[in-house]
Amino acid sequence: MNANDRQAAANLQRLRQAGLTAVNVLASPGAGKTSLIKRLIGSMRASRRIAVIEGDVASSIDADAIAALGVPATQINTGGGCHLDAEMIAQALDKLDIQGPGVVFIENIGNLICPAQFALGESLRLVVASVPEGDDKPVKYPGVFTTADAVVLNKIDLLNHVEFRMDFFTQGLRAVNDHAPFFEVSCRDGLGIETLVDWLANALNAI
Amino acid sequence: MNANDRQAAANLQRLRQAGLTAVNVLASPGAGKTSLIKRLIGSMRASRRIAVIEGDVASSIDADAIAALGVPATQINTGGGCHLDAEMIAQALDKLDIQGPGVVFIENIGNLICPAQFALGESLRLVVASVPEGDDKPVKYPGVFTTADAVVLNKIDLLNHVEFRMDFFTQGLRAVNDHAPFFEVSCRDGLGIETLVDWLANALNAI
Repeated sequence: MNANDRQAAANLQRLRQAGLTAVNVLASPGAGKTSLIKRLIGSMRASRRIAVIEGDVASSIDADAIAALGVPATQINTGGGCHLDAEMIAQALDKLDIQGPGVVFIENIGNLICPAQFALGESLRLVVASVPEGDDKPVKYPGVFTTADAVVLNKIDLLNHVEFRMDFFTQGLRAVNDHAPFFEVSCRDGLGIETLVDWLANALNAI
Repeated sequence: MNANDRQAAANLQRLRQAGLTAVNVLASPGAGKTSLIKRLIGSMRASRRIAVIEGDVASSIDADAIAALGVPATQINTGGGCHLDAEMIAQALDKLDIQGPGVVFIENIGNLICPAQFALGESLRLVVASVPEGDDKPVKYPGVFTTADAVVLNKIDLLNHVEFRMDFFTQGLRAVNDHAPFFEVSCRDGLGIETLVDWLANALNAI
């Protein structure tokens, strides 16, 4: 194990001891990671405690948006760094200082490549793609889709306004990941969110 | 100078000796880099020779699309690599084996972070953002916008279908780059392309 993997394992143990489960959310810039987390908070906050670790190269826009919902949130700024790592998460958990039972959503840096290579201590990985990014993302960026526990296709409200072959997307996805459940959602309209929440609640209960 | 910068300088010299100018195109996954290059080819091929170096983690979809236009193209696959580097470009130039006068478009890996940190031997950098990615990209990913010689906002045909504050985008851009010209385009419809082409032709002629 390398240093990051050792720290990720320590994070996982720490989270478990606190009754917490971490969900690592990975996507391109602007695919809708924050919008998705806000939707999941809306649907899940009545039944479990939620906290959020926001990762960005710069700014605290996303952590501010989460905190405005009354949910504990902390922002990691990486400067020029292209992914979160396990040590950053350990420091963020120090700041959050929360107890479970509950879930910690970790919004990774907007990047379909590097974040896939760094474990953070999460129990689940959600990979988010979005319709306007195009149907070739699994073919062009296979690594991140390979590691997904679930794949969420966001912005399906734009399907009528862009060219997007759903079968090409799913074929590309299934070529590199034959097991992750696939959810089509619109975080703008709320379409498909409840189906995803049902799966996620079951998955969290099974951990 | 580090090894990459030395190779980038060698690439620049080699390109100049061949009468070629390289344009490095940087953007998120799915912002429309290939669509933009195809539009630029359509508008510029009558007046100058064009070749394209396509970068992707995997697949040859983009190089195939360019080659189908009858334009010399070569694909670089980085495996898991998150950016192109100058040595990859040197090898791609060996494969292309082209003479100028003309322009070589280099489509970088879809990533708003790492590619900005690696010179390739280009004379111009185009940074492409797209409307559905959201208006906060310059605030969240300042590094890439800082290095831009021109910024292109693509997919303006979607402005009526998503939330996007143009003034927030341009204010974020101008906070980190006060000089790069800014172009609003739709590669789908062709809107704004000719204005960009006029600027690019002038900029290439001035090099």
